[in-house]
Amino acid sequence: MGMIKAGIKLFSGMGDLIFMKGVFYGVGVGPGDPELLTLKGYRVLREADVICAPKSGADREGVALSIIGEIIGQKKEVLELSFPMTRERAKLEPSWEKAAGRIIGFLREGKKVAFVTLGDPTLYSTYTYLLKKIKQAGPWAVETIPGVPSFCACAALAGIPLAEGEEKLAVVPVIEDLDTVRFVCRHFENVVFMKVAGKFAEVAAVLEELGLKGQAVFASRCGLAGSVVKRDLEEVEEGHKDYLSLIIVKKVAQGG
Amino acid sequence: MGMIKAGIKLFSGMGDLIFMKGVFYGVGVGPGDPELLTLKGYRVLREADVICAPKSGADREGVALSIIGEIIGQKKEVLELSFPMTRERAKLEPSWEKAAGRIIGFLREGKKVAFVTLGDPTLYSTYTYLLKKIKQAGPWAVETIPGVPSFCACAALAGIPLAEGEEKLAVVPVIEDLDTVRFVCRHFENVVFMKVAGKFAEVAAVLEELGLKGQAVFASRCGLAGSVVKRDLEEVEEGHKDYLSLIIVKKVAQGG
Repeated sequence: MGMIKAGIKLFSGMGDLIFMKGVFYGVGVGPGDPELLTLKGYRVLREADVICAPKSGADREGVALSIIGEIIGQKKEVLELSFPMTRERAKLEPSWEKAAGRIIGFLREGKKVAFVTLGDPTLYSTYTYLLKKIKQAGPWAVETIPGVPSFCACAALAGIPLAEGEEKLAVVPVIEDLDTVRFVCRHFENVVFMKVAGKFAEVAAVLEELGLKGQAVFASRCGLAGSVVKRDLEEVEEGHKDYLSLIIVKKVAQGG
Repeated sequence: MGMIKAGIKLFSGMGDLIFMKGVFYGVGVGPGDPELLTLKGYRVLREADVICAPKSGADREGVALSIIGEIIGQKKEVLELSFPMTRERAKLEPSWEKAAGRIIGFLREGKKVAFVTLGDPTLYSTYTYLLKKIKQAGPWAVETIPGVPSFCACAALAGIPLAEGEEKLAVVPVIEDLDTVRFVCRHFENVVFMKVAGKFAEVAAVLEELGLKGQAVFASRCGLAGSVVKRDLEEVEEGHKDYLSLIIVKKVAQGG
């Protein structure tokens, strides 16, 4: 067994069986502020041979690449992967398959490939779908490097706890029907509604109906340029409601 | 207005009103691996005049101080704060009051004081109680620096998504009655049960009853020495069940 160069290992154990070994990393770059990347994420991105990032104007992961721009510099190979803006599995599946195929191509060359994702890679990221495809394709070395989720950064910026003591926390990513809003608000002391932009008015109306509108905080693009935190939902303007908007509802009033 | 030295600013606006200004930081050091501290957390800890950490053998925040030991070095002033190991508010309240008083003493001297917490400071941390006390006591500058929560690191280590697509996620910190376990498992695609050590057998039995035992992952001390990840709850031994144990339940089977 001998090391040729970083990222490529040669194993010659029984007989002359030799294979090269790449590594696939999922790196959570955190909520937006480049300083909220972890030390490990920073190191792995510096050491990676290839950086992968989804390509999309509106997509949050398009943002991930811009966050790490200064870290990766000009020298790296950057692979932008396209995924359709849809929730239809039948349309997404071939795009994951294609992306995984390109990543596996690099792994076969013994390269270290880092897929970047905004926030944490295990929470609502394209990464977990790709990871499954890559695991199915062969015994590639994989490592997931966790990151700071957007809701933690928003709570920090708003100066409120996400949850204390014995309180429960619910995270609800897409609001399909308003009964879900009622349900989680009834049973959980703390709720994070993610991607609220499209349903903001409806969610605000339900919170008013439940007497919780005064205990909700709206946050958008925390840590990115144009970040917004509003403790009064009435102050939220159209321009604030972008793809990275969320509402934190706290049943226990927070006072100051 | 002039800067005297780092951490102390003198404001002389109207007349000769002059006051010194300290800063109180809450720093999430992440789940255990010192490399999972954020770049910002690292910088703030290096720049802080005083590091505060709860003092307790069994307490997770006692662990926080050990994680950053190498970063803060020998030079810093370290203030260990005692909090009783209880959930009784009446007993905790005076300890928070006393700790806040000591921190405010440093802030009055214009010092930068960093309170360290394992994981993220807005999730189940003594920090949020102290923050309220300090805000009530005066207009001190405060900043919360988010960190990687333990459950994100555990999911990463286990190689599973915490939540995907439109799935909801519930975080349940203390299991008082088993009906709560049944309830959240019925209504959420993904559940994190934190601090399961004391109720492990009971929770495992309920998961078996619900047909979910095979879709549960046990994790303990992720990123710390002696970390354990078990995809089979039958393999969890007594020694694995420490204060930092959690179970992630996924209604959608994960395959590999």
